[in-house]
Amino acid sequence: MKKVSESTIARLSVYLRLLTELAAAGVTTLASGELARRCGTSAAQVRKDLSFFGTFGKRGLGYSVPELTEALRGILGLERRWRVALIGAGKIGAALMAYQDFRRQGFDIVAVFDADPARVGTEWQGLVIQRDADLETSLQGIDIAIVAVPASAAQGVVNRVVAADVRAILNFAPTKLDVPEHVAVKTVNMALELEGLSYALVNEARGARRVTSRPAASRG
Amino acid sequence: MKKVSESTIARLSVYLRLLTELAAAGVTTLASGELARRCGTSAAQVRKDLSFFGTFGKRGLGYSVPELTEALRGILGLERRWRVALIGAGKIGAALMAYQDFRRQGFDIVAVFDADPARVGTEWQGLVIQRDADLETSLQGIDIAIVAVPASAAQGVVNRVVAADVRAILNFAPTKLDVPEHVAVKTVNMALELEGLSYALVNEARGARRVTSRPAASRG
Repeated sequence: MKKVSESTIARLSVYLRLLTELAAAGVTTLASGELARRCGTSAAQVRKDLSFFGTFGKRGLGYSVPELTEALRGILGLERRWRVALIGAGKIGAALMAYQDFRRQGFDIVAVFDADPARVGTEWQGLVIQRDADLETSLQGIDIAIVAVPASAAQGVVNRVVAADVRAILNFAPTKLDVPEHVAVKTVNMALELEGLSYALVNEARGARRVTSRPAASRG
Repeated sequence: MKKVSESTIARLSVYLRLLTELAAAGVTTLASGELARRCGTSAAQVRKDLSFFGTFGKRGLGYSVPELTEALRGILGLERRWRVALIGAGKIGAALMAYQDFRRQGFDIVAVFDADPARVGTEWQGLVIQRDADLETSLQGIDIAIVAVPASAAQGVVNRVVAADVRAILNFAPTKLDVPEHVAVKTVNMALELEGLSYALVNEARGARRVTSRPAASRG
């Protein structure tokens, strides 16, 4: 099988979200063109994305909403529940704990760790904070680790997460992480997203295409 | 000028972050191969990314760290400060207010809005919460709006943000937003990132490539 790109997987998530909404509204079939339009892509792209995983839909009739929903849930690993550990009981961590959508989609935050000895043993967001010094042993049975620690601490934490045989990491630290190839990492970097916006404001949204006349600023 | 891809812009942010660290450590020049290696990409990619914006570096000598830093800051729109409004004074909003990196990089959250009348007028994270009912007028002078409201409220908020002539939006609501072409939107969707991880756990990390034998689940 061809390696499936991250952007295909992201679109599958978007398709699934739309299908879930439509199912709630009582829609039972959907043309690929309509699915594409409502997800901001093309029908050809939808068909290509799905083609990696089998044959879906019926020519002229479109997709069965419940069948495609079920297939996408299977592809995305959402037919089971996942045990998630949160490392770093700070404000980002608190926001994640409060984020109802996680639980709704099968991701249960079942353990929380922090480096601050004063906080270890205290209750926080319904869980007791554990010490993060011995993650290697305390992450047994955890599927996904959320790393919400300062950038300077992140790689050290991640090394211990990997040693605990956790193979999926959601990283909120603004730093690049080195992990073995069998470990999947997704980084949520809000500063980087903001820089994408300031880039757009300076270079595109103003319509001036200023950079075309930028001199070779640092030659020599 | 060729349209610069979002992934190029994201890599420029990563390059800048590395250069800033190296400058703090006293490094003054850097080979493109070393920049590439430490950012997890190739030297050819680094050169291609930079080529959109001019000619940088000197053959055999590499890049001047301070000059490339300054050029990247200019390209990314980080040589000035940006006025940011936060819409939605919830937990995600609180995490963002506490995120020191935003201010350090030139993004000042100068106003906060909420739909809850009981909260309007109260102090929150050092700002007074304003009512979000008249965003069209109260967003004067704002460069970037952060939308941290429930999915069902997001498009309505965004319509008013656009009417206020704000041209950059950082969206935390798990929904697709319709905006005019001159408005830049970045969405931070943590549920989607988690689904990318569960996909990896089911389909890749276990090494079984299970999907190759998946039947055509919803044909017919």
